[in-house]
Amino acid sequence: MLAPEEIIRLEDGAVVLLDQRQLPAERVELSCHSAAEVAEAIRTLAVRGAPAIGVAAAYGMALAAWHGEDRAAARAVLAASRPTAVNLFWALAEMDAWAGDPAERARAIHVEEVERCRRMAEHALALFSPGLRVLTHCNAGGLATGGVGTAVGAIVRAHEAGLVEHVWADETRPLLQGARLTAWELEQAGVPFHVIADSAAALTMARGEVDLVVTGADRIAANGDTANKIGTYMLAVLAHHHGIPLVIVAPSSTVDLSLADGGAIPIEERDGAELTARFPARNPAFDVTPAALISAIVTERGIHRAPFDLDPGAFA
Amino acid sequence: MLAPEEIIRLEDGAVVLLDQRQLPAERVELSCHSAAEVAEAIRTLAVRGAPAIGVAAAYGMALAAWHGEDRAAARAVLAASRPTAVNLFWALAEMDAWAGDPAERARAIHVEEVERCRRMAEHALALFSPGLRVLTHCNAGGLATGGVGTAVGAIVRAHEAGLVEHVWADETRPLLQGARLTAWELEQAGVPFHVIADSAAALTMARGEVDLVVTGADRIAANGDTANKIGTYMLAVLAHHHGIPLVIVAPSSTVDLSLADGGAIPIEERDGAELTARFPARNPAFDVTPAALISAIVTERGIHRAPFDLDPGAFA
Repeated sequence: MLAPEEIIRLEDGAVVLLDQRQLPAERVELSCHSAAEVAEAIRTLAVRGAPAIGVAAAYGMALAAWHGEDRAAARAVLAASRPTAVNLFWALAEMDAWAGDPAERARAIHVEEVERCRRMAEHALALFSPGLRVLTHCNAGGLATGGVGTAVGAIVRAHEAGLVEHVWADETRPLLQGARLTAWELEQAGVPFHVIADSAAALTMARGEVDLVVTGADRIAANGDTANKIGTYMLAVLAHHHGIPLVIVAPSSTVDLSLADGGAIPIEERDGAELTARFPARNPAFDVTPAALISAIVTERGIHRAPFDLDPGAFA
Repeated sequence: MLAPEEIIRLEDGAVVLLDQRQLPAERVELSCHSAAEVAEAIRTLAVRGAPAIGVAAAYGMALAAWHGEDRAAARAVLAASRPTAVNLFWALAEMDAWAGDPAERARAIHVEEVERCRRMAEHALALFSPGLRVLTHCNAGGLATGGVGTAVGAIVRAHEAGLVEHVWADETRPLLQGARLTAWELEQAGVPFHVIADSAAALTMARGEVDLVVTGADRIAANGDTANKIGTYMLAVLAHHHGIPLVIVAPSSTVDLSLADGGAIPIEERDGAELTARFPARNPAFDVTPAALISAIVTERGIHRAPFDLDPGAFA
């Protein structure tokens, strides 16, 4: 697995990140020299995955401070980069609230996300049992977090513990984060897997070859409704139909207690040319899975079950 | 729309077909000069779609006769081209049973499929009502049939009758028959549409933007269980969850009364490299939708409803 600083790091005058658009073909680093360049890297998915977007935004604010950029302008350009993952806004608020050295707080946010990933993976172990065939969607691995990952971190940890026999990685159209990034990470971790078309998840379930569905999240409302990569809601309905549990693994930085339910989560619509350059296309990047279709949500605090109460007080 | 002979035709010494692998970028004809070349065109999806595969196989047998090829060998190579669409085996059996000029019978099979498409589209009109938003999967249009199509034929006819407001065309991974072929046909027919990722069908339904799902079929068992392009079963489960009817449109040549149910329908597994050349992949090309999830099956004989009785006697 990659070290956190291989995925993203703050240097003097630059945020340096592994360009995820080039993986797995090439391992290329991208250096961003302004908040606007970091925002562009987020917008174009050079860095993606909710926790990693948050880390990138924090580093972007630290970078702006290093260069003496206008703080409000830097914040605005980062906040406008992508709308759905709340980690972006959470990280900007954390930076707002910090009176000290911005680089210090940004690096601490990264370290905290790495530690949250580790704790989520340990908590999630209790949801696995020997020999499981697990299906996951998009990429919720190290690349998405700067740590060991959320869903993929839990899967890899469970595989180390002898609890995962095989993984189905949805290719995840249109940008193939599953076929490119999750496959690459599972290969590096030595976890047996096959890539499948997103539309083959239903047949794979009907064949009795899926015991558990595990995904990450981009924003979780107070009641447990969860926005994640387009197709997660599809999996939730299919898993429900086949009696297969669906588990969400996401850090507390992905929980948005300001939203009572998922109805108000903004769903990013991306360019239809990601699907077809020739014909009209609709390209929503996320969907919202109602809490009723979610068996458990794992955060760094533990395993949450319905009815979800994601307020930190619930774990006091 | 294309004329039947623009999609596939028998000439002296050749079966000439529109190479569907090149669409929509280029309109190129492929000439096959032996049964083996026709089989290769079927295997590699230069011609695809259950009814069109049947027509191609019939023309392949006529071509073999023209060239004086061994009849049994020609039949064997065609029968081995693809396993799921029963129209292939139906057409070969029709050719077996014909004692006259093979070209005459093959051309008659094509004409019959064209006429069946026309009749299906007329019957299906009764299932549409004004303003419908229809979702379809893969390509069940003229290209798939040599006529006006099954599902797409019905949609285009219903649009002409003022009953279809908009179509969602699933892109249909891995080979994008929806984004390439259905989109091209809908554009030519002047039907408003958008391409969506297969995994976006669930969200589109949840948003209340789908009134009806219509697909073709590759093989229908006696009880109505229906094999069709991978993802059709996904749509069936999703449509059921959202209270949306699913209608199958397919000619009687797609019905396999020798199979009591869908459990024995062979599901073609194609090369995983269609999904990813770098990582292990599983690539089933079809799935089977249980009859219980199908609202109606339209054949040229009329509209069949559950419990399905697809024997011609049922329409005597």
